[in-house]
Amino acid sequence: MMQTPLLLTAMMERAEKFYPKKHIVSRTESGIHRFTYKEWGKRTRRLGSVLTNLGVKEGDKVGTLAWNHHRHLEAYFAIPCMGAVLHTINIRLSPQHIVYIINHAKDTVLLVDSDLLPLVEKIRDQIPHVESIIVMTDGEMPDSTIEDLHHYEELLEKGDPTFSFRHDLDENAPAGMCYTSATTGNPKGVVYSHRGIVLHAMALGLADTTGIMERDVALPVVPMFHVNAWGLPFAAVWFGTTQVLPGPYFTPGLIAQLMEKEKVTVAAGVPTIWLGLLRELEENSYDLSSVRYLLCGGSAAPRGMIKTFEEKHGIPFMHAYGMTETSPLAVVASMKSQHEMLSNEERYDVKAKQGILVPGLEMKILGKDGEVEWNGREMGELALRGPWIASEYYEDDRTEDAFRNGWLHTGDVVTIDEEGYIKIVDRTKDLIKSGGEWISSVDLENALMSHEDIFEAAVVAVPHEEWQERPVACVVLKDAEKRTVTEEEIIDFLRPQFAKWWLPDKVIFMKEIPKTSVGKFLKMALRDEIQNKISQEE
Amino acid sequence: MMQTPLLLTAMMERAEKFYPKKHIVSRTESGIHRFTYKEWGKRTRRLGSVLTNLGVKEGDKVGTLAWNHHRHLEAYFAIPCMGAVLHTINIRLSPQHIVYIINHAKDTVLLVDSDLLPLVEKIRDQIPHVESIIVMTDGEMPDSTIEDLHHYEELLEKGDPTFSFRHDLDENAPAGMCYTSATTGNPKGVVYSHRGIVLHAMALGLADTTGIMERDVALPVVPMFHVNAWGLPFAAVWFGTTQVLPGPYFTPGLIAQLMEKEKVTVAAGVPTIWLGLLRELEENSYDLSSVRYLLCGGSAAPRGMIKTFEEKHGIPFMHAYGMTETSPLAVVASMKSQHEMLSNEERYDVKAKQGILVPGLEMKILGKDGEVEWNGREMGELALRGPWIASEYYEDDRTEDAFRNGWLHTGDVVTIDEEGYIKIVDRTKDLIKSGGEWISSVDLENALMSHEDIFEAAVVAVPHEEWQERPVACVVLKDAEKRTVTEEEIIDFLRPQFAKWWLPDKVIFMKEIPKTSVGKFLKMALRDEIQNKISQEE
Repeated sequence: MMQTPLLLTAMMERAEKFYPKKHIVSRTESGIHRFTYKEWGKRTRRLGSVLTNLGVKEGDKVGTLAWNHHRHLEAYFAIPCMGAVLHTINIRLSPQHIVYIINHAKDTVLLVDSDLLPLVEKIRDQIPHVESIIVMTDGEMPDSTIEDLHHYEELLEKGDPTFSFRHDLDENAPAGMCYTSATTGNPKGVVYSHRGIVLHAMALGLADTTGIMERDVALPVVPMFHVNAWGLPFAAVWFGTTQVLPGPYFTPGLIAQLMEKEKVTVAAGVPTIWLGLLRELEENSYDLSSVRYLLCGGSAAPRGMIKTFEEKHGIPFMHAYGMTETSPLAVVASMKSQHEMLSNEERYDVKAKQGILVPGLEMKILGKDGEVEWNGREMGELALRGPWIASEYYEDDRTEDAFRNGWLHTGDVVTIDEEGYIKIVDRTKDLIKSGGEWISSVDLENALMSHEDIFEAAVVAVPHEEWQERPVACVVLKDAEKRTVTEEEIIDFLRPQFAKWWLPDKVIFMKEIPKTSVGKFLKMALRDEIQNKISQEE
Repeated sequence: MMQTPLLLTAMMERAEKFYPKKHIVSRTESGIHRFTYKEWGKRTRRLGSVLTNLGVKEGDKVGTLAWNHHRHLEAYFAIPCMGAVLHTINIRLSPQHIVYIINHAKDTVLLVDSDLLPLVEKIRDQIPHVESIIVMTDGEMPDSTIEDLHHYEELLEKGDPTFSFRHDLDENAPAGMCYTSATTGNPKGVVYSHRGIVLHAMALGLADTTGIMERDVALPVVPMFHVNAWGLPFAAVWFGTTQVLPGPYFTPGLIAQLMEKEKVTVAAGVPTIWLGLLRELEENSYDLSSVRYLLCGGSAAPRGMIKTFEEKHGIPFMHAYGMTETSPLAVVASMKSQHEMLSNEERYDVKAKQGILVPGLEMKILGKDGEVEWNGREMGELALRGPWIASEYYEDDRTEDAFRNGWLHTGDVVTIDEEGYIKIVDRTKDLIKSGGEWISSVDLENALMSHEDIFEAAVVAVPHEEWQERPVACVVLKDAEKRTVTEEEIIDFLRPQFAKWWLPDKVIFMKEIPKTSVGKFLKMALRDEIQNKISQEE
């Protein structure tokens, strides 16, 4: 067989040639921008020539600080297809972490949204490798303390719309990178290769996973600065899928409007987004009948939410699992044919699990004594291997913690049932060890969040003299003003569902649960907060 | 990203782990054999250990002379997953060509169906590299002039159901090979790598191509000795698809019965098969409502046939194109979303084309002056490149004819329309050159086959003093006994559809059109036959 490399260049050229009339819809500061893949291709080539003129060479890192919009999509291809590396910077990191990752990656050029420019102004003197900063804006160049800013559109005007991208790169060459927050210390970098991105996009296109196809209208609510918006922009370009990019504003109302107006078929986001959409749908009415499914990852979606979407609103819901280190799609809750025989309630039980391993990857679930039984009960840490799984953290000593013997040790504790459906039970670090046995904080949280008065809940371990650790529940009520339910009522609600020793020792009512930059519960902070609260009470 | 190789071993292990209860249905000499992927996995491992004990080592070639059945499917994985090479032998080749390819490949072991054993008996003394011959049969070992035959089931009984397959092969290592008939001379060998087969299976699973998935029930009528039955068995195992293997007997009636009884969703075969099925459906009634589509390749399907299947029987039809050198899927007539706006007649026009390039491949269409316009008219030779396109013929001087500058030159003359849909116009060698202009024999054939009295038609060039070449039509009538239509009527039927100089000079009525071992018109033989006929008449 021919030794032709798997490259992003072929993906973008497919869109240019076969889907020139298909649309990209982008919401920017000045409204909806709508253009075709043909126009996008020319602008992307212009950007390639512009970056070349700015001195960007093969292997150089180009950082983006940007929301989901068409210019970011141009950068998504121009940078890797010229042989450089697309470094998407998580704008929700702290400024000092942003400084760290720009310097660690040695970004030479930054592409920055105009509303995010103040962020860069604050750190400009701390990022010496950065030679050029390009501002992405619909309008005039904003006033800035930074000198020598470039205007994206002005540069593009001078660019070459016939610029040639590389067909001769090694498929293992770096194409992108993304840093993931660590529990302690600086974020850790993951480098994506061309080969990894192409194979991951193929996995997204498989009929049995997410089946992204030309006739889809895909809306990534998940940010393009977070694990490549789960690879959707890459797959969508390759398959000629219409893309709807929501820009900087994604309130539930605006998302619902976009979905209705553009007849979105596939939308992707974290549970927080879908919780927000659900509340929006309770208050206002939208026609979302075009939706094939909502793809949900990042953290576990409560079973009750899945059921409400499907039963009350007729919107199919699909759970998935992955992480920055896994590109991210590793597990997806697509159904097997045999599941058609299940009752609705049984189907929701399956849909509430993270799902089944995606073709192309391999896994092990490592319990106390080797690989666990497929019985839905035994817990073990999920380990993954495959061509879109990272092999290391970029120039980072912490590589050896997670990557051992050729496997990525995810840090996620899971069970797996007879059919191979994985359920995240906890993070290895968040498991509650009570009297030598494990209690899953996630199981308790899901049960709590199925209570009609509870909006959000997190369960954490607190130290205990006799039992080493005991669970404490932190609860945010839907109507925070009125204390509609008591601690005792909540424990009584849990009682029939769990063994007695699993029941939380305490329920703490809070206004909000602290979250990470990507919307996950910040359990470390929560543990400290609770510890303080309990000490004060005592 | 991890450097994990793309290997068939991971495909089969996925079926064993995630789809152990799914079925393989196999029709053998003694009836329907039905078993699970779990049982198949154990038997496949037994076969791996058996072949190892017989001395098969990494890189050795193992030949199969077999129909589509479960034992052949075991060989499809056992041989490549142990590092050896699966050489599927086209049983329809002449005995001297079979001798040639067994010797050229240096097969050391042959797996032979009991009804094909007489074929091997005749050539046993001409294939000195073959050390062991295993007979695949449900029953007793047949009497034979060959000594030391092995009985497949007796060997398997002694095999090891826990035999370990290789995870450490190079993804570019050879996994399979298949010889394709040449216009003159011996067949030419194509070697398939693990990487090529895995990526090709991924392409078969894409929602926008053939979308093979777990809930499908796939029936490859196309033989497993012909381009890996278009890769369907590989994709089906990987995705846990139910497989229906029709065995040695595939009359239209038996195929229709299998499709109805097993609720087949996807069936794959050449036009001849579907013409036969169509006649069967006219005569007997079947419930084929489970069918998602009939996949058709090998040669062009007439538009009329596509229309009849869809309109009269409600069975969707999907054209595809490929060749032994392309694994084979290269082009597939899946529809774009915009095609939904077309009238039925316009849709059939699109469906009668071979389709659009599959993601992962690249193409060029080379006319007289470089690449042709995408206007549906200009003709050029299709050239292909990609990871599942062959780079050479195995140890064969003819490599340089077809493989030039990194591209496979297919020898197929095509047009491509504005949307990128390819239509095969002719073989480079079958084009009729009349007065310096090209006439497409395929266009004339399709038009002829849409005539209600015509069963089959082939158009070939005959030499002509003034015009160099002129077309002559060879026609097989549906009711061969009654001459229901005259030469003049047929020419009159064509007249409104073509320029005057395209109309055949002569219509010759025949009982049958000579075909190659894979059911394509044998135009060389036909040209000779017609030449003789015309000389005799003169």
